Amino acid sequence: MIGKQELIDAYNRISPYIHKTPVFTSQTLNYITGAQLYFKCENFQKMGAFKMRGAMNAVLQLTDEEKERGVVTHSSGNFAQALSLSCKHLGIKSFIIMPSDSPQVKKDAVRGYGGIIIECKPTLAAREETAMKIIEEKHAVLIHPFDSENVIAGQGSACMELLEEQPDIEMIVVPVGGGGLISGSALAAKYFGTNCKTIGAEPFEADDAFRSLQSGMIEMNVSTNTIADGLKTQLSRNTFSIIYKNVERIIRLTEREIAEAMITIWERMKIIIEPSGAIAYAAIKRERNYFKGKKTGVILSGGNFDLMKLTEVMKLMNHDK
Amino acid sequence: MIGKQELIDAYNRISPYIHKTPVFTSQTLNYITGAQLYFKCENFQKMGAFKMRGAMNAVLQLTDEEKERGVVTHSSGNFAQALSLSCKHLGIKSFIIMPSDSPQVKKDAVRGYGGIIIECKPTLAAREETAMKIIEEKHAVLIHPFDSENVIAGQGSACMELLEEQPDIEMIVVPVGGGGLISGSALAAKYFGTNCKTIGAEPFEADDAFRSLQSGMIEMNVSTNTIADGLKTQLSRNTFSIIYKNVERIIRLTEREIAEAMITIWERMKIIIEPSGAIAYAAIKRERNYFKGKKTGVILSGGNFDLMKLTEVMKLMNHDK
Repeated sequence: MIGKQELIDAYNRISPYIHKTPVFTSQTLNYITGAQLYFKCENFQKMGAFKMRGAMNAVLQLTDEEKERGVVTHSSGNFAQALSLSCKHLGIKSFIIMPSDSPQVKKDAVRGYGGIIIECKPTLAAREETAMKIIEEKHAVLIHPFDSENVIAGQGSACMELLEEQPDIEMIVVPVGGGGLISGSALAAKYFGTNCKTIGAEPFEADDAFRSLQSGMIEMNVSTNTIADGLKTQLSRNTFSIIYKNVERIIRLTEREIAEAMITIWERMKIIIEPSGAIAYAAIKRERNYFKGKKTGVILSGGNFDLMKLTEVMKLMNHDK
Repeated sequence: MIGKQELIDAYNRISPYIHKTPVFTSQTLNYITGAQLYFKCENFQKMGAFKMRGAMNAVLQLTDEEKERGVVTHSSGNFAQALSLSCKHLGIKSFIIMPSDSPQVKKDAVRGYGGIIIECKPTLAAREETAMKIIEEKHAVLIHPFDSENVIAGQGSACMELLEEQPDIEMIVVPVGGGGLISGSALAAKYFGTNCKTIGAEPFEADDAFRSLQSGMIEMNVSTNTIADGLKTQLSRNTFSIIYKNVERIIRLTEREIAEAMITIWERMKIIIEPSGAIAYAAIKRERNYFKGKKTGVILSGGNFDLMKLTEVMKLMNHDK
């Protein structure tokens, strides 16, 4: 159980190691949506995404004996980098299981932070099997990228910082992949907000959270053909349970809407965010009436984008649907 | 003559109308250069560039009778937008003379801010002739994009803000186009810095300032074949005279260096800046030994970049030279 005190402890524990990211506003985007938006810029977080918060909180709670053994995780993306960098800070070995089709730029980043990459086939089964092997062989401690309570508590600190600056925010909109960020955010909104609702945003192409909230049980993604590569992941037991109790609703977005949101934020706010980071803004634009006049927090979750892929995203803006 | 008091007055006059832009740091970029860098993010300024400061300072000093007549300027880029927006704030008519080959995105932006565009041939002679015509026909007041003392004083406020936050900066590096920004910055460094030197950065492809400082008189650009489109302009009488007295040196950069600097800042700092905005960082990287260990201010002058052109910039990174 993650209570108020766990969130406070996580926040204090990781503060010396992470950036307190700025909160941006944009008159143009307020005008477009009719809401008052407060963008929490986790694209400026260390290694370029909020994941640093959860990884750091997990690693800092290892015992000395566990630190000696090292840690292992499976992630194709930002959590891989976050865990490597967290471990580097503390001189701990990190084994990172990455699908063989992970972008080279992400592999390079993990290696740059000192992570030891173990490649596997790009399926959930292969990931988990490889993780088991490493746990047995190296006696490394598994840190799950989002199901871990320590990770979830760490991710909540972004929303805590936002509420510290803007305590009367009425809504907070958060991308949903595996659900670690939105779980932490929803708990932070509950414990530290003033009647602040948490809303999720996910691609139609990976809408497991939307369908899980409808059916009341964890539903599987049918396809994951989305540019929001951080949101392809499936909810886990812990994140589903927190989301089910604490999230007001999930808004689904087309690929075109995600692409447009990303480009609008690049052009208007002059900051680089990845497609997964843009989806919360896309949700507010889609459901304009729902957010109208509301003081709304938007978590810009990360900025790790391969610039070679910009043309691809811009092409999606002209897609129908 | 622009003295200390003129700068203070300009700063106070424009403050209600402009953003106090943030100062960013980057451990990675400090590591690459060996210097301590403080990036003044004018890409986050209103309309996306520092030009708003100078335009606003000029427009706010018009008499009521002049406001009635409206203003005219010639600019292919950011100053056109800045003057339109400044005039919009105060309900003044603005005539903007733009070369016929200006990017559509810049024309659209000027129109969006209410500027009235008059197209002319893309030569300095045609610009000045068209300006004269508008002054005669419409009785509009000419505001020169950089030779105007009011504009120069306004541009100085970016450096004043930077020195307010970091008073012991030893060097400040500034892009040089027409010279308005570096003139204002050099005066601010002289009046408000503690022994702070001003250094200019310009493309080899438009190195009029470098050669002008060498010869002691205004030299013409031979070619202006540079991606740093904000820096194609020629020094003017006022800016040359201020730069000659107050700027320590000018560093010239290749197109490849400018492109690399821009992409590094996008990727590492997660912010969008235009090529002209990247050149100051490129200069520090090129002359590493000169800046080593120095607390150095970097003016990121603007962020108005046509995303369609990213591929073009990335291609330049692989050029020899």
